[in-house]
Amino acid sequence: MSTLDDKWFTEIYAEESTAFSLKVTRKLHEEKTPYQTISVYETETFGNLMAIDGCVMLSGRDNFLYHEMMSHPALFTHKKPRRVAIVGGGDCGTLREVLKHPDIEEVWQAEIDERVVRVSEMYFPELCESNADPRANFFFGDGIQWMRDADPGSFDVIIIDSTDPVGPAEGLFKRDFYRDCLMALAEHGIIVQQTESPLMNRPKSIIADAHNEMEKAGFDHTRTLLFPQPVYPTGWWSCTMAGKGMPLAYFREADVDERPFYTRYYNSAIHQGAMATPGFLEEIIGD
Amino acid sequence: MSTLDDKWFTEIYAEESTAFSLKVTRKLHEEKTPYQTISVYETETFGNLMAIDGCVMLSGRDNFLYHEMMSHPALFTHKKPRRVAIVGGGDCGTLREVLKHPDIEEVWQAEIDERVVRVSEMYFPELCESNADPRANFFFGDGIQWMRDADPGSFDVIIIDSTDPVGPAEGLFKRDFYRDCLMALAEHGIIVQQTESPLMNRPKSIIADAHNEMEKAGFDHTRTLLFPQPVYPTGWWSCTMAGKGMPLAYFREADVDERPFYTRYYNSAIHQGAMATPGFLEEIIGD
Repeated sequence: MSTLDDKWFTEIYAEESTAFSLKVTRKLHEEKTPYQTISVYETETFGNLMAIDGCVMLSGRDNFLYHEMMSHPALFTHKKPRRVAIVGGGDCGTLREVLKHPDIEEVWQAEIDERVVRVSEMYFPELCESNADPRANFFFGDGIQWMRDADPGSFDVIIIDSTDPVGPAEGLFKRDFYRDCLMALAEHGIIVQQTESPLMNRPKSIIADAHNEMEKAGFDHTRTLLFPQPVYPTGWWSCTMAGKGMPLAYFREADVDERPFYTRYYNSAIHQGAMATPGFLEEIIGD
Repeated sequence: MSTLDDKWFTEIYAEESTAFSLKVTRKLHEEKTPYQTISVYETETFGNLMAIDGCVMLSGRDNFLYHEMMSHPALFTHKKPRRVAIVGGGDCGTLREVLKHPDIEEVWQAEIDERVVRVSEMYFPELCESNADPRANFFFGDGIQWMRDADPGSFDVIIIDSTDPVGPAEGLFKRDFYRDCLMALAEHGIIVQQTESPLMNRPKSIIADAHNEMEKAGFDHTRTLLFPQPVYPTGWWSCTMAGKGMPLAYFREADVDERPFYTRYYNSAIHQGAMATPGFLEEIIGD
């Protein structure tokens, strides 16, 4: 069997009994913030790598998959999005994708740890290129409280771009938070949340839980989209959308085909394809 | 950084500078054949794991993704498949999927190393449950020579279920072999081959090469399908189809929806979605 020397960054996914490793050339940064430890490594082939508390957050090479799928499907499903909220999303890659839409007037990003944004500005400048856009607004603090305090009907799309549902992000996967999102959404609004891997080895499915909790919070449509993400456990990831009086099966396909910006992964066929649900997942969500 | 002790099986993907590890509970089998070293491990959460020369071939938990996608899209694109050839495929999972189609009359499997089949029968009996089907025929020997000797027009679908294009499998990714396949196919026949990850870090794209070589061999349509596969590098994999006077954009969707057998991943929406090509891959294939 092969063994890895100290030139590798390894994340062990204990629940999966799997591990993923990237060969690193050097450590670029490490700091302990009031919330967590942020580390940045330079890797041989995946660009820069950010880890929080030892868990891979993103790499320069493959984050486009995640960031494009967290933003464009929801924005092109909404009829006319103008005001967007991002909860989490400290690397600012989702913010950049949202701001590619010329009709977006205002984005608020609520990130608990300002240092994630500042470290990203240093080591992932390409993701932060829209941080100074006049439409971008930052709130550094607790996203759960911030959403509770939001004016009713003030957002068209809310993107919950958080870490796993453990520790500070746990409350972002709960009914009370979804209910606050529902209140903060204008009519026909949409929330979208990262919901981990459909192939996880967990006794309880995060995807199925999200559907249940979103429906119990009062959303009348939910839908999970699937996409590849090599640096996350199993290499396959998901986001789950929920609509406020808003069906999610159709999207503005012609607008996608004529979008005035470049995407490396997302297009209308990818959007449609991401909504395909394999039998094993239908069984899980149906439970 | 985390480190892995000797309870882990690790495969280092040198070209990618990445590694994937599975926690093993024990080694079940190891043998050196005239062709390669076959190892089987029991893992904590991925079922049994087969490695050849240290490279992961399959796990009990996630092989359904690969095997379903290597067989059903091609079989449901062909109008009326009766005779199928499998080159490689020693674990017999593809053979099992093919034989789920009641109209299939005959399958020939050409595997160079009979020991892979015998070891699979011991440690992956669920994949080998159709080996004794009277429609299944085995040839143990060189698949390249076997295809060269095949009667012209004798197969409707040829599935090239091989290892990577290095060592014995290298010739399976070459124009001469594709030309022999073209000869061995009946009119409107289809070949399908595993073509690795669309996200590989290689200077030359295996997918783009396959398209080029298949077209130069005389196939008039080619198409790549994408699907998740956690135990392979990047977690995202592909197969590429080529048609002999046979377009590949449409398939027998109604027949998929009424298929008389169970699939865990494949369905008509998944088939359609797997054909979606992200922009970055269009650029690679277009080269």
